[in-house]
Amino acid sequence: MLLEAPVYKEIFGAVKIYELQKVIKMDTETEDVPMFTVQNIPREDIYRTIGEMAIIVPMKNEKLHLVDGVLKAIPHKSPIIIVSNSKREGPNRYRQEVDLVKHFCNLTHSKVIMIHQRDPGLAEAFRETGYEDILDENGLVRSGKGEGMLIGIMLARAIGAKYVGFIDADNYIPGAVNEYVKDYAAGFLMSESEYAMVRLHWRHKPKVSRGTLYFRKWGRVSEITNRYLNQLISEKTTFETTIMATGNAGEHAMTMKLAEIMPFSTGYSIEPYEIVYLLERFGSWENVEEFQDVFDQGIEIFQIETLNPHFHEDKGQEHVKEMVLLSLPTIYHSKLASERLKRQILEDLRMHGIITETEEPPKPRIMRPIKDIDPKKWMNVLESNQETLLRFDL
Amino acid sequence: MLLEAPVYKEIFGAVKIYELQKVIKMDTETEDVPMFTVQNIPREDIYRTIGEMAIIVPMKNEKLHLVDGVLKAIPHKSPIIIVSNSKREGPNRYRQEVDLVKHFCNLTHSKVIMIHQRDPGLAEAFRETGYEDILDENGLVRSGKGEGMLIGIMLARAIGAKYVGFIDADNYIPGAVNEYVKDYAAGFLMSESEYAMVRLHWRHKPKVSRGTLYFRKWGRVSEITNRYLNQLISEKTTFETTIMATGNAGEHAMTMKLAEIMPFSTGYSIEPYEIVYLLERFGSWENVEEFQDVFDQGIEIFQIETLNPHFHEDKGQEHVKEMVLLSLPTIYHSKLASERLKRQILEDLRMHGIITETEEPPKPRIMRPIKDIDPKKWMNVLESNQETLLRFDL
Repeated sequence: MLLEAPVYKEIFGAVKIYELQKVIKMDTETEDVPMFTVQNIPREDIYRTIGEMAIIVPMKNEKLHLVDGVLKAIPHKSPIIIVSNSKREGPNRYRQEVDLVKHFCNLTHSKVIMIHQRDPGLAEAFRETGYEDILDENGLVRSGKGEGMLIGIMLARAIGAKYVGFIDADNYIPGAVNEYVKDYAAGFLMSESEYAMVRLHWRHKPKVSRGTLYFRKWGRVSEITNRYLNQLISEKTTFETTIMATGNAGEHAMTMKLAEIMPFSTGYSIEPYEIVYLLERFGSWENVEEFQDVFDQGIEIFQIETLNPHFHEDKGQEHVKEMVLLSLPTIYHSKLASERLKRQILEDLRMHGIITETEEPPKPRIMRPIKDIDPKKWMNVLESNQETLLRFDL
Repeated sequence: MLLEAPVYKEIFGAVKIYELQKVIKMDTETEDVPMFTVQNIPREDIYRTIGEMAIIVPMKNEKLHLVDGVLKAIPHKSPIIIVSNSKREGPNRYRQEVDLVKHFCNLTHSKVIMIHQRDPGLAEAFRETGYEDILDENGLVRSGKGEGMLIGIMLARAIGAKYVGFIDADNYIPGAVNEYVKDYAAGFLMSESEYAMVRLHWRHKPKVSRGTLYFRKWGRVSEITNRYLNQLISEKTTFETTIMATGNAGEHAMTMKLAEIMPFSTGYSIEPYEIVYLLERFGSWENVEEFQDVFDQGIEIFQIETLNPHFHEDKGQEHVKEMVLLSLPTIYHSKLASERLKRQILEDLRMHGIITETEEPPKPRIMRPIKDIDPKKWMNVLESNQETLLRFDL
């Protein structure tokens, strides 16, 4: 794969954020393009990396034919981890998903782990390893997407994956999914640190530019989030920047080493919170001893503009409000935010009727990093108590 | 790549038509899936085949950002042959295409040949080699898509390509284009004959099922063409069949050996005419000596259902009428068509107002096979007389 060379970056303490890099050509080989202005990530290297990357697919009542296309498009060597929170009563959507996955695995011998997010065995495994952050008042894992992703990371850790990549199950274009996995691999192959993150950006979402993902008079959700994230960065550096282009990137990936030390937020605040957290904790050389290795190696954040456009399920205007409501508070409540920035966010949220004049932006719920969970013990408790865990060729 | 095994086929004389095979998994390796119900075409083999396949991209005033995506998505090892018939007056679209291609080639070192269809050098090359079939009354190459494809095949022959694959320039999904090329390769790798064709089928074109490609009260154009092609086949075998699912498949590929002996029709009649011709000429054991090698090896036609959906430019209702008007006459005028079948086509075309009550379906214009054109001489004349020929890394 050819990518624009990662020439420009911003550095904050141990954190490097690279400018957006466009994909220029698919499927190149080692010897193909020895150049300076372009970065060649040979196909052979990409396929090797893909085999070490678990692809986590969180799902919740998605259309089955979309799920089917997504599974078929993920390169064969990548283990797939499906964390479903689909309903099991009335029409049993989860049952249908299980049938589809079984058929798919029988046909293809793909490596798949699948579990239902509300499996009591999962709750038990977290409880026994001292991680109640993820549990609700009934003692089950909460229903959020962030919680699903965290389960996925724990399962990826249990099978020894070196990288985790997230792919949404509601993507209309299998070819785009196939590219995303390779984009993730390309990012990791460019990184010189074991603490790396790759976030994807699409140039255009066809036909939705004035549709539901557009917030009237304010712009697209991602533009709003990026604008404030860049402002947060600018205040720190006193230079204006537009470097952050992937604040809401649901399609992203991390090295396992980075995933282990990340606290996760919930719902649509996860992705922007990752950036806020990394800037807060590693953006300046403070308390270096706690994370000596991280500060030594640095954290690299790559942003890749995909070749494919993005067509996904339209979740409506309420979804947009929720995304804004959950994204901006991660910036508002950051210890890096100045009073001026906080005031601006507050005014914006109120003016657009996302919160009332008397409300404060909700404080994001943060789950601690999973690094202190003993993965062996967690997996053992899960396996002894699970009701829905399925493993194919893994 | 995993595909459904090609279990079922229909055989007519030397022609084998395989049933539609679905793509089941992208990017598998040799050892991955040793199975019986599924055909594994290892990635390594696909990439090897891709290097021997010229991808012909005919274009005419397409949107530049679509062209850009298509070029970037074609695997790097495949030489690309662009035959443009875009306008050169007023806003010079061809000039813009050339600029885009030059920039693309500088960045990626892709192998590209580009030419304008109305280049006088092309006309001269065909004239000097005794092939006036393709020329118009002004002595230039005619403007049809079939003519563009034929030029592409001649250029592919000149660079020694073993296979030619056609890709339309107006595809919205680069990931789909990338898959098409690999689907072609998979087809050739399944073939046991040097005379093979791969035709692609998409399960659904999202959002157009009742839109412009749907012909009111009659069905989709491709359904109409397939229905009549299947009827043509059925009359020959006296058994009803639904084997042909790709009568109008613009996305298709051939071995060079097959391309050299094919006569080509023009406009939208090309693709159905290919099938009609193969059935007429090789569907029974007649005049075998003329094509001894073809009869010995047989002709294999693979039909592959792509994983990706197809989003392309909407060319409106007139386009649909034209497609029907040009597709069905190839069947109507076939020597294989019974009187009953001809009457039915005539009635259908008249009832739907595609031709008037007194008109006959137009006879398709057929260009002779290119096998008798001397490729060296053709290329020499072209190079001495060309005004627009561009070659990059080729």
